[in-house]
Amino acid sequence: MSKILVFGHQNPDTDAIGAAISFAYLQKELGKDTEPVALGTPSEETQYALDYFNVDAPRVVESAAGETNQVMLVDHNEFQQSISDIAELTILAVVDHHRIANFETADPLYYRAEPVGCTSTIVLKLFKENNVTIPKQIAGMMVSAIISDTLLFKSPTCTQEDIDAANELADIAEINLNGYGLDMLKAGTNLSDKSAETLLDLDAKSFPMGDKNVRIAQVNTVDLNEVLNRQGELEAAMNSANAANGYDLFVLIITNILNSDSELLVIGDSLDKVEAAFKIKLDNNRAFLNGVVSRKKQVVPQLTEAFS
Amino acid sequence: MSKILVFGHQNPDTDAIGAAISFAYLQKELGKDTEPVALGTPSEETQYALDYFNVDAPRVVESAAGETNQVMLVDHNEFQQSISDIAELTILAVVDHHRIANFETADPLYYRAEPVGCTSTIVLKLFKENNVTIPKQIAGMMVSAIISDTLLFKSPTCTQEDIDAANELADIAEINLNGYGLDMLKAGTNLSDKSAETLLDLDAKSFPMGDKNVRIAQVNTVDLNEVLNRQGELEAAMNSANAANGYDLFVLIITNILNSDSELLVIGDSLDKVEAAFKIKLDNNRAFLNGVVSRKKQVVPQLTEAFS
Repeated sequence: MSKILVFGHQNPDTDAIGAAISFAYLQKELGKDTEPVALGTPSEETQYALDYFNVDAPRVVESAAGETNQVMLVDHNEFQQSISDIAELTILAVVDHHRIANFETADPLYYRAEPVGCTSTIVLKLFKENNVTIPKQIAGMMVSAIISDTLLFKSPTCTQEDIDAANELADIAEINLNGYGLDMLKAGTNLSDKSAETLLDLDAKSFPMGDKNVRIAQVNTVDLNEVLNRQGELEAAMNSANAANGYDLFVLIITNILNSDSELLVIGDSLDKVEAAFKIKLDNNRAFLNGVVSRKKQVVPQLTEAFS
Repeated sequence: MSKILVFGHQNPDTDAIGAAISFAYLQKELGKDTEPVALGTPSEETQYALDYFNVDAPRVVESAAGETNQVMLVDHNEFQQSISDIAELTILAVVDHHRIANFETADPLYYRAEPVGCTSTIVLKLFKENNVTIPKQIAGMMVSAIISDTLLFKSPTCTQEDIDAANELADIAEINLNGYGLDMLKAGTNLSDKSAETLLDLDAKSFPMGDKNVRIAQVNTVDLNEVLNRQGELEAAMNSANAANGYDLFVLIITNILNSDSELLVIGDSLDKVEAAFKIKLDNNRAFLNGVVSRKKQVVPQLTEAFS
């Protein structure tokens, strides 16, 4: 049996890395030769969790070629968010909590998606269904992923299942959920020492919408102005990214994790579509989005609809 | 909460109808306002099962428009095999055992696919995970679906999980698995009184492959010659179907369910792709496929590969 690489999406967040580590561990316990890898280096938030639970960061890969042709995907399915040679590989399994799009296989596979706030909440179910015990370190990465994806249960994507899963995993991981959670989230909001290019790449995904290629990045902060003061620098970097990568539109969501609101900054074509999607008027390429914190639930569907 | 229609693919087979009935029942027990419907009338095989277990055939629909915009899919996911207005509907859930292709949603959903022989095997798991008791009639439709999809466990798609599920369901349904199974399969092989057009439509699905539109139909028989004696009539009907529906290639798999072999009859473009896919030479548009009984596992991937 050949090796199986297990990974989350490009620009990995804590769930992409945490779910890869935990699902690869589960599959190894079930007899598969799995290795968790990552399509990028951990963010400072994720590194905080890795350090806290004394877990090695997964090896970073750009393609599977030469190593294996068998992979399992977590926390994503869209090919443009995946490993560079995804179309040539055999996808054995997917565990995810996103919409399904731009995904195709030649053969039947195991696919488990549920509309919950975090992939790791589904992975917890899989551990239970297969009667596999969760070690403390693995539980720590899983609860960190849930805290990250739900912004400590404040995101509208958060379900009761996520809250229950986080509490169960926090017990195994031996942490105080709120105390640890806030410390971990704040570790990810240290933006001042990062270039505009780095900020735009921290948590960014591409989405085909209509015939357009839309890039949507999100940064978390405890102070919107800290980011907005750098608007000129950010706009220049967004323009460069559009030109270099063929994005028609670049959308940056700057989210205040304390107030659970966001400011939108957009550069590119189809600004009228953005205004229609959120029923707002852009002013100086910006708009305030009251109560918006979730790209998946409060941004992508609205933009997809506007472009359809 | 608005009504939710639950259905399998066009030209429904026993799993498409059995899984729609059983999954709709499960979801109703879980509090959802579901109705099982079908995208076509039951085959004689399916009608045998419905009659035996005294279950009403699901209402036949062509679109959901006007009734609801919420649906759940079983035993398929590809839009071209689904309800006519699928692209305008909200897909809440999918339970399936096929490859994933030409499927897209704007929002996260519940998607449960496993590489087993029958959707109803997965539905049985869902009953257990949710602690819902399976009534005798529902178990009867589920075991009939497993018998149908696995050709009484002879198909290479059949897994140990399908066999275990069928035995468990046969106990609840109070049937002798082999005796009932053979009677049900034979009820579906009464082909002599059917027109060529009807034969081609009994169990047919369309697949986009490369830039071609490929139609793949399958008929079960206990006597290959009974079907092959009508080759001229079948070829004329296949040519007409290609012209009328824009199929580039029509593939008919005639399967002997007693010997577990098939004869292939093909009409249209790209016959060289068919020969490459199965490593055969067509003679008079035909070829014998030793041991081939599964469209999903022994035909679709091979053709997809040849067209890619």
